Amino acid sequence: MQKPQPRRPFPGRRMRKPFPPGQRPLRGGAPRPQAEQKQGPSPLASSPHLRVMVLGGCEEVGRNCTLLEYGNDIIFIDMGLQFPEEDMPGVDYIIPNTTYVKGKEKNVRGVIITHGHYDHIGGIPHVVPNIGNPPVYALPVAAGIIKKRQQDFHTRPINLKSAKVTDVLRLGVFQVSFLHINHNIPDSVAVVIETPVGALIHTGDWKFDFHPAGDQMPDFHRIAEIGQKGVLALFGDSTNANKPGHQISEKVIGEELEGIIEKAPGRVIIGTFASLLSRVKQVIEISEKLGRKIALNGYSMKTNVEIAKELGYIKCHRTTFITPEQVDHYPPEKIVICCTGAQGERNAALNRIANNEHPSLRIQPDDTVVFSSSIVPGNEQAVQRLKDTLCRKGARILNYEMMDVHAGGHAKKEDIKLLLALLRPKYYVPIEGNHFLLRENAQVAYEMGWNKEHVFVPDNGQVMLFTKEHAELTKEKVPTDYVFVDGLGVGDISEVVLRDRQVLAEDGMVVIVVQIDEKTGSLVGSPDIISRGFIFMKENKEIIEEVRHRVKKTVVDKDPKSAADPNYIRNQIRAEIGKFLFQKTERRPMILPVLIEV
Amino acid sequence: MQKPQPRRPFPGRRMRKPFPPGQRPLRGGAPRPQAEQKQGPSPLASSPHLRVMVLGGCEEVGRNCTLLEYGNDIIFIDMGLQFPEEDMPGVDYIIPNTTYVKGKEKNVRGVIITHGHYDHIGGIPHVVPNIGNPPVYALPVAAGIIKKRQQDFHTRPINLKSAKVTDVLRLGVFQVSFLHINHNIPDSVAVVIETPVGALIHTGDWKFDFHPAGDQMPDFHRIAEIGQKGVLALFGDSTNANKPGHQISEKVIGEELEGIIEKAPGRVIIGTFASLLSRVKQVIEISEKLGRKIALNGYSMKTNVEIAKELGYIKCHRTTFITPEQVDHYPPEKIVICCTGAQGERNAALNRIANNEHPSLRIQPDDTVVFSSSIVPGNEQAVQRLKDTLCRKGARILNYEMMDVHAGGHAKKEDIKLLLALLRPKYYVPIEGNHFLLRENAQVAYEMGWNKEHVFVPDNGQVMLFTKEHAELTKEKVPTDYVFVDGLGVGDISEVVLRDRQVLAEDGMVVIVVQIDEKTGSLVGSPDIISRGFIFMKENKEIIEEVRHRVKKTVVDKDPKSAADPNYIRNQIRAEIGKFLFQKTERRPMILPVLIEV
Repeated sequence: MQKPQPRRPFPGRRMRKPFPPGQRPLRGGAPRPQAEQKQGPSPLASSPHLRVMVLGGCEEVGRNCTLLEYGNDIIFIDMGLQFPEEDMPGVDYIIPNTTYVKGKEKNVRGVIITHGHYDHIGGIPHVVPNIGNPPVYALPVAAGIIKKRQQDFHTRPINLKSAKVTDVLRLGVFQVSFLHINHNIPDSVAVVIETPVGALIHTGDWKFDFHPAGDQMPDFHRIAEIGQKGVLALFGDSTNANKPGHQISEKVIGEELEGIIEKAPGRVIIGTFASLLSRVKQVIEISEKLGRKIALNGYSMKTNVEIAKELGYIKCHRTTFITPEQVDHYPPEKIVICCTGAQGERNAALNRIANNEHPSLRIQPDDTVVFSSSIVPGNEQAVQRLKDTLCRKGARILNYEMMDVHAGGHAKKEDIKLLLALLRPKYYVPIEGNHFLLRENAQVAYEMGWNKEHVFVPDNGQVMLFTKEHAELTKEKVPTDYVFVDGLGVGDISEVVLRDRQVLAEDGMVVIVVQIDEKTGSLVGSPDIISRGFIFMKENKEIIEEVRHRVKKTVVDKDPKSAADPNYIRNQIRAEIGKFLFQKTERRPMILPVLIEV
Repeated sequence: MQKPQPRRPFPGRRMRKPFPPGQRPLRGGAPRPQAEQKQGPSPLASSPHLRVMVLGGCEEVGRNCTLLEYGNDIIFIDMGLQFPEEDMPGVDYIIPNTTYVKGKEKNVRGVIITHGHYDHIGGIPHVVPNIGNPPVYALPVAAGIIKKRQQDFHTRPINLKSAKVTDVLRLGVFQVSFLHINHNIPDSVAVVIETPVGALIHTGDWKFDFHPAGDQMPDFHRIAEIGQKGVLALFGDSTNANKPGHQISEKVIGEELEGIIEKAPGRVIIGTFASLLSRVKQVIEISEKLGRKIALNGYSMKTNVEIAKELGYIKCHRTTFITPEQVDHYPPEKIVICCTGAQGERNAALNRIANNEHPSLRIQPDDTVVFSSSIVPGNEQAVQRLKDTLCRKGARILNYEMMDVHAGGHAKKEDIKLLLALLRPKYYVPIEGNHFLLRENAQVAYEMGWNKEHVFVPDNGQVMLFTKEHAELTKEKVPTDYVFVDGLGVGDISEVVLRDRQVLAEDGMVVIVVQIDEKTGSLVGSPDIISRGFIFMKENKEIIEEVRHRVKKTVVDKDPKSAADPNYIRNQIRAEIGKFLFQKTERRPMILPVLIEV
């Protein structure tokens, strides 16, 4: 029977409790049974074979990265980042682990990018220079965003090549071409890789849209033709594979949006992701159609629109755009403000507007604020606070679920079925999603008659072998441990550092400075006690005095044989004071004894 | 124009950046314009009047607590807790601030509880003994849960009185009676308070259910009768006031649930909240009907069912319940396991089962795991990990939105309309929800013809005055600052402590121990550098050496006039080393200089 736990009778909702040393699972909720290094190599390895490993994106959302290797040729598809989880305080993001190519850098022929979202390109500045600086191939919009990002980061220059959707690249034994599909940023493609053992297709993020707004339909004829020729394996997006039906069209989203903007009595403020370029493009076109001026806000919003305008993806009159300072020169019903910050990010445009921190824009009654309502996990309370603030100032708030980044851009069950029917791959490999979503994606193929031997549900780094005749999801695993980016540091944040941050966040710390006579080990003066994040010291002098007293006692009472062993004294202090403070407060601050030998 | 921020080019998703000292808003996203203390008292204050203040629950979800005062009589309605937000690391929960009754404890006549959920009763052990230990009145289920909780906490005994729904209490000038409504825990009531200026009604958490499972319909006749007599003010739940339509009936939920359990090929594992007693009751009844045995798991689950059985709310054969150890004695299709942990809580039953940490239960293929799918904000990733783990072991996962605590228990727009139509209160006061939700609730009344002068949207602590003729939402505010519970400490965690925890969590800390000659102020020996949560020291010896070097230089180069001023030296070290570390790493660890004068 479970015991009552008066300390935390309610589920700790914020930060997960730190794991004991060595027990922190690197991925997943609990230590997963690790696929062991196989005893011998797979029987397939004796024939000429292709090795494929998905380095990231199979056990999480983000850090998408797939590696293909045949003989001395390696290519990567995507190089994304992942946002940190709740037990990784201070971490900026996580990038793919490319330890596998260490020593093989000269074999890396290229990195192919499916589209310009951070979960597919975000690792480039940190990773690409370290894997032999191979060329990075991306279609124009993605290339524009990558280029801008390189400028922001000041990392080593990369060899970025802007590709056309009709290009055919020869990268070692691999021949790479692109396949137009739909998503919610222009220039999203699937990648077709002809290998010596057969054709592989990687969908990237995709959906089928029969009437996309300002984009083409998917290239169904080419898809059918490829299917006709024969596909060895299809690697497919799982993000919405648990959702029934077909994904919604961008056109429908646009019509809804137009209705909202048309009916709004005053200004319309649209908070969205700058990366949702297809949506931003629609907002601009609708505003123009309805005779409203549009003011863009937020650095990434302006940058992305600039890139899209340069490339001709966004076409509109020069006079449609105004600066935020010009907004007040027009009647409210003639204004749309498009800004970042729908996730409640503290420094983003929408929060600055709401909190009177924006240089020129303020909320006024009759403003309509449109929110992308599906919230990235972890941002719920920030969004709630932002809505409260907006609504105190008289704004009307609209949640517009269809504007959501995840709701709009990914294939659902019926879309996946159509793709599988057209491509008829021999093997189907669900990727891009938590394990649960990969399984749901696999289920779609099972329902259509694929058997379990022809559907691989890989973990990150689990090696797949393909020959002309057979294929296997082996038990071999290459390293995929998290690589953390924190400030300027890449990979210098270890599990130990993160664990310390968790302990410090939970209950703070107490530094105990003790001066000891170098020879006798006896105490000199009175110990100094410094605490941060534990209790408010000014109001808890008694506890501090008691700590001082117990430290003295610990040092004086110690075993005389250990007189000269500072480690022993440190451990004793840590144990004694830790116990005492827990009894008094039921908190476990980090205790740092500092011994000064004088 | 916003500048690029290479440090955090992506919205910080976990912990909000700490606010600068003195600028942290206590509630809401940004410092709210505080309602100022009014110059003079309200004109209403000259006539005999009732003062009402909602101490918690108007700017957040949780810590529900309302105070009524007339002359020398005070009563409270509810005394709940709130779960901490993401910038409150280590905090267990937040309880109502009752500073207002300091010195008036002898006036407090009682605390009335609307139902047994923690956001309505959780503050009792900490608060009630400090407000004069007044009697606490609760209906049997709530009383049972409160009693159990007092035993777990070992706090001072309280004077708990189990009330009947038909009871009429005389508490000073107040006459209190109960009004049967529906929610998702038995014995949920609204409270009718007859005061010298008129009748007030507090809904608690409520919905209308025309065919509740094992409960009564709301007492519509009494509601109509009270409306007929005249209601001065209605204080109403806003939790689902932004949702159109009527709330779903418990019976419909039960039918869905029965279908799932009936069709499941093997065992059914239901992860839910122990506090959702109406749902747990249905699970038990359905299992019995379908001939399945039921094993309860989780301390609070067992306790709550025990309380409900003792009170006769749950009636079933003794043989229906089995222990977890007995589960394997039955065929899988004859088993239902009902457990806590649908939020992914690390120590709850479901997580233990999933991770092979449960003494007797393991996941097996053909298990169906039913999740309450709406996730408490902050738990998304934990739930995702749990689902991944369950599904690796072959379980089928079902999301069952209707089982959700928030989806099922609260009145939606049309329910609120019916209540307003029946009660016809002169004043309507939306409570229980973020400001945004209160506004949505107010909107419902506006639509029905209430004007703005008769709908009060209060902030926490904002005083309302009621006389026989008039009422006013004044500008007076009583204290409602957060009172944090952390371990055994109540109210001893200050903003300073929380800010320190945030800084520590974000980038860790560096302790710099410097020995100084007491008289000359010159450096003795070499500084000691200790860091935690910042960088992995073993791999960053260069930085540490450079810090040591710079500390020496700072102490040696210092202005000779300040030789003897340790504060000056400390500040210099903090500034110099802080700047250096930020340049090197773009992190801002807490720097703690310790000066030892020898």
